[in-house]
Amino acid sequence: MGGIIIFSSGNALIIQSGGPTAVINSSLVGIIDSICQNSNIKIYGAKGGFQGLLENSFIRLDTLSKEKLDKIKHSPGAILGTCRLKIDENCLNILFNNLKGLNIRFLFCIGGNGTMYVTNLIGEYAQKKKYDLYVIGVPKSIDNDLYQIDHSPGYISAAKFLISCCKDITFDISSYDSPKKITIIETMGRNTGWLAASCRMASTIDSNVKQLIYIPEIPFDLEKCLEKVEKYYRDNHHTLLIVSEGIKNINGQFFSSSLKYDALKRPHLGGVSYQLKKLIDENLGLNTRNIDTSIWQRCGSQYISTTDLNEAYSLGYKAWELVRNQQNKVMISLKRKNESTYKPIFFFTDLENVAGMEKKFPSNWYNIENSYVTDDILDYLSPLLKEDETAHSIIGNF
Amino acid sequence: MGGIIIFSSGNALIIQSGGPTAVINSSLVGIIDSICQNSNIKIYGAKGGFQGLLENSFIRLDTLSKEKLDKIKHSPGAILGTCRLKIDENCLNILFNNLKGLNIRFLFCIGGNGTMYVTNLIGEYAQKKKYDLYVIGVPKSIDNDLYQIDHSPGYISAAKFLISCCKDITFDISSYDSPKKITIIETMGRNTGWLAASCRMASTIDSNVKQLIYIPEIPFDLEKCLEKVEKYYRDNHHTLLIVSEGIKNINGQFFSSSLKYDALKRPHLGGVSYQLKKLIDENLGLNTRNIDTSIWQRCGSQYISTTDLNEAYSLGYKAWELVRNQQNKVMISLKRKNESTYKPIFFFTDLENVAGMEKKFPSNWYNIENSYVTDDILDYLSPLLKEDETAHSIIGNF
Repeated sequence: MGGIIIFSSGNALIIQSGGPTAVINSSLVGIIDSICQNSNIKIYGAKGGFQGLLENSFIRLDTLSKEKLDKIKHSPGAILGTCRLKIDENCLNILFNNLKGLNIRFLFCIGGNGTMYVTNLIGEYAQKKKYDLYVIGVPKSIDNDLYQIDHSPGYISAAKFLISCCKDITFDISSYDSPKKITIIETMGRNTGWLAASCRMASTIDSNVKQLIYIPEIPFDLEKCLEKVEKYYRDNHHTLLIVSEGIKNINGQFFSSSLKYDALKRPHLGGVSYQLKKLIDENLGLNTRNIDTSIWQRCGSQYISTTDLNEAYSLGYKAWELVRNQQNKVMISLKRKNESTYKPIFFFTDLENVAGMEKKFPSNWYNIENSYVTDDILDYLSPLLKEDETAHSIIGNF
Repeated sequence: MGGIIIFSSGNALIIQSGGPTAVINSSLVGIIDSICQNSNIKIYGAKGGFQGLLENSFIRLDTLSKEKLDKIKHSPGAILGTCRLKIDENCLNILFNNLKGLNIRFLFCIGGNGTMYVTNLIGEYAQKKKYDLYVIGVPKSIDNDLYQIDHSPGYISAAKFLISCCKDITFDISSYDSPKKITIIETMGRNTGWLAASCRMASTIDSNVKQLIYIPEIPFDLEKCLEKVEKYYRDNHHTLLIVSEGIKNINGQFFSSSLKYDALKRPHLGGVSYQLKKLIDENLGLNTRNIDTSIWQRCGSQYISTTDLNEAYSLGYKAWELVRNQQNKVMISLKRKNESTYKPIFFFTDLENVAGMEKKFPSNWYNIENSYVTDDILDYLSPLLKEDETAHSIIGNF
């Protein structure tokens, strides 16, 4: 794509895609603010994600009041609406024609690795058709499974939600001396264990509660799990099992037995904690509780992390700066500055480096013998959560 | 019990009993502060609830630092430890002898209606044995099922937790236009629907999400429930079903099929949302999600309500004032001042007016036709939650 961009000659379109997060709207407002402060082009939002672009369903965003934008910034869920959509060649042609129809020259897609894949496709299609179009990816993923970024917007808030849950539950079960409690917390994470692993942060509380953490990257061995639960019980400990929804057995099959599939033909997960609870009840005769916060972990407004909110906004804001610097088919990203105080540095990477990939939890951060996560996760997460520590440090039992 | 109390002639004992809450420790600190500021008697805490008194397991509380007490005040879970214990005549005799052994003359029990029953028993037993003992009940119940009090400490925080959950989920599911989402939230509430009914507050958000609320006081009709879910789906609405764990069918049997029993021979509940999800999947072919926050709703530290925290503390503080005013075998309580601004007025009531009773959700606050709660709950809850409204009002979808 050559030549100098004439910023007044086209319109911008923003799309939110994939699962909502607690801070996806902050990225949206970041993009709007940046464009409005540096140009006077029209900004549209596609209603309902790519589906809105397919159906020519748009809303004007540059005309929103500052007050309304501030409210949107702090609201969880994808305010433009979102969907999960499989894009084929026919779809792509319709999307492209609708972009042309609205004279869109700047396309911003906020989403995960699947969204980056589609965004890249649209960029390539436009080049093939010799239509001047800037496409920029803005990352989001509670699963933290995006390549080429230190951590994805949405992840810190979801992690904060789960860590708080584990801490509170630790206080609650510590209130009982006998019988020892077995409690299962189910986390999201279809293919990656970043969310479940974050719960390791809750182990910093001094308590008689032992954690076991199970992630999709490591085959789940039910027999060994039951052995450990029984041992902790015998040793007079409470046990907190933290289980990713996507754990698989040694044959690579999902532990969850649901046979339903979503729009992308991926099996619907969930219910793992309920099944595991039943198995512990049946096999060990130990009464077990399960906690499944399901989609709440990705939209808990009380758990929005300050760092996460600000980074999501900055990534949106800097997405438009990339266009001004004539970058195309790239994703805005961040890495951390190697200093004692945490600070993000923003950079960009080609969309094709991210499109459709999946960043797994590092296997050397997991201790198979103990079904546990190593201290590496503390080094990784502590700086990100520092700003969010509560004013009152709270305390367990005597 | 006659004569003037010589405050230096005996010791005090505090017991936390029954399920933990997010503010039960605030009541504990209220009692400690009040006694320490007005006397120099020794204060003990029973470790693990009445079990600690049975086993002579105590901890000194009057020697704790101000800083530590402040931390305890803001911590969820029963910090002294708690248990569920069936008290028989033999038990009562041991409890009584241990009280005498430690020269306890002032006994404070923080708990629900079961705890008030035991507290009253101990008071009667002491009178029978002509042992000078003041027994005072300090209320707590996330279920809000105590008689003779406008609302129980612990309830507002648990309600705030559930209302926030429903609001966040409403934002999340509103992000999807199609397919319409069916989401079930399971609340605690073995015999009463106060917690489930509180979720009605989340309906004040302007959205395309319809609520259905099911409580234990009203027989659950599965067929009618399925009809309503299908109708809302057909009418292009999302549906949020809010279901108490204790809902029963028309024959009075728990909908939950678990056959496990707790220490008080009451059936273990939970899992209702998972069963209902399966039934909706099977009968209507509609994919449904369920959310079960289980015990987290009673200990969510981020959701501690300012009003709740302060009232729990004041009720503890005023419990000692009752002793100074020579009241015995009473529970400290509160009602609301009939003015435009909410303010609690403290009073006391005989323990026997509360002991073992259960305050049901008023049937005239429930609309059976619509499986919904009337506006009465808004009038009841709004003043209690006013201080807890978030600084940023958040916003749904376009």
